[in-house]
Amino acid sequence: MSAGLDIQAGSEDLNQLLEIGKLIMRSHYCGHLNKSLVGQNVELCGWVNRRRDLGGLIFIDMRDREGLVQVVVDPDMADVFEVANQLRSEFCIRLIGEVRARPDSQVNRDMATGEVEILATQLEIINRSDVLPLDSNQKNSEEQRLKYRYLDLRRPEMSDRIKLRARASSFVRRFLDGQGFLDIETPVLTKATPEGARDYLVPSRVHKGKFYALPQSPQLFKQLLMMSGFDRYYQIVKCFRDEDLRADRQPEFTQIDIETSFMTADEVRVVTEKMIREMWQELLDVDLGTFPVMPYSEAMRRFGSDKPDLRNPLELVDIADLVKEVEFKVFSGPANDAKGRVAVIRVPGGASLTRKQIDGYGEFVSIYGAKGLAWLKVNDRAAGMEGIQSPVAKFLSESVIESILERTQAQSGDIILFGADKVNVVSEALGALRLKLGTDLSLTDESAWAPLWVVDFPMFEEDDEGQLHAMHHPFTSPLGVTADELKANPANVNSNAYDMVLNGYEVGGGSVRIHDSAMQTAVFDILGIEEDEQRRKFGFLLDALKFGTPPHAGLAFGFDRLVMLLCGTENIRDVIAFPKTTAAACPMTEAPSEANPAALEELAIAVRAKAENV
Amino acid sequence: MSAGLDIQAGSEDLNQLLEIGKLIMRSHYCGHLNKSLVGQNVELCGWVNRRRDLGGLIFIDMRDREGLVQVVVDPDMADVFEVANQLRSEFCIRLIGEVRARPDSQVNRDMATGEVEILATQLEIINRSDVLPLDSNQKNSEEQRLKYRYLDLRRPEMSDRIKLRARASSFVRRFLDGQGFLDIETPVLTKATPEGARDYLVPSRVHKGKFYALPQSPQLFKQLLMMSGFDRYYQIVKCFRDEDLRADRQPEFTQIDIETSFMTADEVRVVTEKMIREMWQELLDVDLGTFPVMPYSEAMRRFGSDKPDLRNPLELVDIADLVKEVEFKVFSGPANDAKGRVAVIRVPGGASLTRKQIDGYGEFVSIYGAKGLAWLKVNDRAAGMEGIQSPVAKFLSESVIESILERTQAQSGDIILFGADKVNVVSEALGALRLKLGTDLSLTDESAWAPLWVVDFPMFEEDDEGQLHAMHHPFTSPLGVTADELKANPANVNSNAYDMVLNGYEVGGGSVRIHDSAMQTAVFDILGIEEDEQRRKFGFLLDALKFGTPPHAGLAFGFDRLVMLLCGTENIRDVIAFPKTTAAACPMTEAPSEANPAALEELAIAVRAKAENV
Repeated sequence: MSAGLDIQAGSEDLNQLLEIGKLIMRSHYCGHLNKSLVGQNVELCGWVNRRRDLGGLIFIDMRDREGLVQVVVDPDMADVFEVANQLRSEFCIRLIGEVRARPDSQVNRDMATGEVEILATQLEIINRSDVLPLDSNQKNSEEQRLKYRYLDLRRPEMSDRIKLRARASSFVRRFLDGQGFLDIETPVLTKATPEGARDYLVPSRVHKGKFYALPQSPQLFKQLLMMSGFDRYYQIVKCFRDEDLRADRQPEFTQIDIETSFMTADEVRVVTEKMIREMWQELLDVDLGTFPVMPYSEAMRRFGSDKPDLRNPLELVDIADLVKEVEFKVFSGPANDAKGRVAVIRVPGGASLTRKQIDGYGEFVSIYGAKGLAWLKVNDRAAGMEGIQSPVAKFLSESVIESILERTQAQSGDIILFGADKVNVVSEALGALRLKLGTDLSLTDESAWAPLWVVDFPMFEEDDEGQLHAMHHPFTSPLGVTADELKANPANVNSNAYDMVLNGYEVGGGSVRIHDSAMQTAVFDILGIEEDEQRRKFGFLLDALKFGTPPHAGLAFGFDRLVMLLCGTENIRDVIAFPKTTAAACPMTEAPSEANPAALEELAIAVRAKAENV
Repeated sequence: MSAGLDIQAGSEDLNQLLEIGKLIMRSHYCGHLNKSLVGQNVELCGWVNRRRDLGGLIFIDMRDREGLVQVVVDPDMADVFEVANQLRSEFCIRLIGEVRARPDSQVNRDMATGEVEILATQLEIINRSDVLPLDSNQKNSEEQRLKYRYLDLRRPEMSDRIKLRARASSFVRRFLDGQGFLDIETPVLTKATPEGARDYLVPSRVHKGKFYALPQSPQLFKQLLMMSGFDRYYQIVKCFRDEDLRADRQPEFTQIDIETSFMTADEVRVVTEKMIREMWQELLDVDLGTFPVMPYSEAMRRFGSDKPDLRNPLELVDIADLVKEVEFKVFSGPANDAKGRVAVIRVPGGASLTRKQIDGYGEFVSIYGAKGLAWLKVNDRAAGMEGIQSPVAKFLSESVIESILERTQAQSGDIILFGADKVNVVSEALGALRLKLGTDLSLTDESAWAPLWVVDFPMFEEDDEGQLHAMHHPFTSPLGVTADELKANPANVNSNAYDMVLNGYEVGGGSVRIHDSAMQTAVFDILGIEEDEQRRKFGFLLDALKFGTPPHAGLAFGFDRLVMLLCGTENIRDVIAFPKTTAAACPMTEAPSEANPAALEELAIAVRAKAENV
């Protein structure tokens, strides 16, 4: 197979070679070759990206991690030519050759190495390749791409994402190391609790019938590290959630986990905002600017979302006060209900929407529980009611319509879309509609970056049975109240929590934690967690709070999501080397799969259902 | 509780404050205070390490992550004094005070901040503390220390280890980033196989009856990354092994995982040796020097171990050729057996060992299967046989004894200890005895560092049934043979593997991998892995080998063990923030524990045994 190369390198001068940066099996990466090397012999290792035969010569586009270079094989070099003649796409090869400048007419400006080519003088096939099951020119199904992930990752588009991810984690570590944060590992085999749902469980062999749980986050461990006095902690760490998957969720995901002692919420925000700004600057050369800070209530009011995409100029405008008195019950009902909301979105230029398009948006908002989508076109603002076109205009007085137009600053050519229902329904429906309109009508500036802090979240959410649930998690500190004040009126208290939002994605979230055991117990009580359950699940935390716990606060970033944004992709699987499908399976290794029956025996567990085929 | 401090800081100038390095709740760490700050007001947060009342004043040793400083409270400051009077050990406090130089007579040279003290002007108790369940002066049981791990980690001895670990991982990342290695994450939820033992299993909820396995190493994924062309990969990654624990094992452990393409074994050794040398230089200011390289056969011959501790000067000396002809069957039997070994250790000064001590060593070697421990004291080398004292001398001729003395270069006062049995028994028994003697007789230089590469391992080990097993793993490349040559004579082939040994610990191990599918299939065949099992377990690897796989090689370090060596501890739990006990349990969180019955139902698994109590 070989045209005379010995792949085993000598070892005597290895240290010296390493010092001067020489690679032994090769002298350079393909992608690094340039005009300064003209006349030199280089040794290259890599893959045949493409082979062409032209004018009696063989041209090889040779690829390695750093890029492509063109190799020329001349039939005068009979040995080399014979080997080259066997080459097919994706053969792994090694060669020695001379760097030549290309004539001006043949310089390829689209190629980083396009000013040079290599005249091969020795050539060896290291490994042949079958024809790839993935087509490089066609779209492959994602299932097929995942099955042959190792081949899919050869595509520069994919490998660039994985490389950018590595640069991102390296940046984060350098930044946090520089700020005095300590990288401390927390356990993966953690405590299962009888109340725990959506935890991945791991049966114990030593303690038969008992289970570990894979962590959904290292929350309690990082709080304990603050109690130990480590002061500033971080970890880039895998977390696990066994839940129904969505397009941007994975059963295992990576978190940049941060916790600090003796820092206020403001300080945590400043440090982490600085990190993200410098990251974008270093990796994308983008200045994100200072992040605006917005209370949750404002975000819900103006954008119908706690993670508004501020690249989208549309806003929700409340009009309940204007329609309280109208006879049209669809509006006046919610307008007079303390739990109702009536709001509109004015869409500039939206009067050109067809009836069919508007009906489509009506169907869209129904997903979020809206019962319809009233609309009002402003065909000619100067023409009074004559210029208005709307199926609901007849239910509204001229003065009500005029006040809506004034409040929304409607112009000729706009459309106004209405939401009237329970607060949550209106906010969610119009919030989602706002995003869809922004994309459909190209109102959202996709090239922009819009970061934002959302703060002052409610401490609790109420479910339909009136039970309160923690909006973040039960270790989040309330804002500005004592334990007694919290107990007296929990539903109206805000938490000291903060979310970082970027282009409509929640990229990070955190809070000041409770460091007072009376407060922690009060929160557990409000959440309806009984005392024995408190002890069983969080006994060690409650114990730990007795021993001089410092004030502490932290934040966790969804690292996969940050990298998604850095890469400009909306598919989380594109930024994970070996992701799972949305059905939590791996088509390449065929995980999950059947287990060793003897191992199950030893674990003292039995499978109750016949194993399904993946 | 407060003497007038508002813990919520203002936010307007946070960015500016952060730029100039000012911490908001505090201005300095306690441990950073020094004479240059005399006269300045400082704000400190931390813990009461100790309180003393002396001459009407209250003295507080205040502690934070960076160290201790002495605080003085004067009764003239009535408010502050009243708060100080409530202080007990481990109260979390915040104070403002003035840095004062201590009079020369009161300078504490044992304390980094011993030249100064702080005169408190404001003092606040952030959080009180119960009396700690751990005694700071007494030895606590490890169980108790693990139960209150967050308190045990407050001890500077423990927190220093965790900090050194963070510095170690930071160093490794900086080094490998600098060498062009890419940090790429591999899955934690991987494929379970019917043959897999000792894997932790994770039942799938989506695919009922099927399981994921937690990885024992990312071996196959890192090889696939090389097939993708990433060229240089690393990861500091958790791995899992459900096996009987030993003192230096944990169910989850951390690996520095490295893989490269187009690099020879020598190159991998040079890069990783450079990493460890620079690591020791940076973290301990120790120059490890160039690592010697030793074949496996020499290590077993001279030290009876594949991970010899070269700080120990004792060596095994083979004497089978000298005793082949003696009538003493205990020696001549193994000496004439191709699978036997006869070897001795000469222990300088060992003639002073008592009969009882020698009997003790005899019992010690019996653990390793040795049937006895023959010995020979050289009381006076000049006195011929008169100077010899030995229960076996009578079975040996004078010339045999003389040739043994010559070969071992025995001196007056030495003892010679004999091993004669099967090769493995002699090597293991004398190898272990060598270590024990080195420690017992203080022959091993505990202050020294002795690194070493062991290479040229046998490819396979034979079990009692004659079946061959991979000495490293089945993806290890044989050294210098074709697939056909390997199949013809597998038992005599060496692998292209290498272990890094430091002070008798195997800290890292790796190999050149098989990149040829015929060779991979040959190895599977030799190992007796049937074709359908090959497909089921490694089908994706065998597929991947068809598509131009590059030559690749790698290495994995046991990170916990490296940190153990850096910290000078022999207890692996000392270098892990939240370790498990040797019974794989966590006394703090009480993991593992009973799981949610509804969750088990949903996972379609049942517990067969009644849960044991941990």
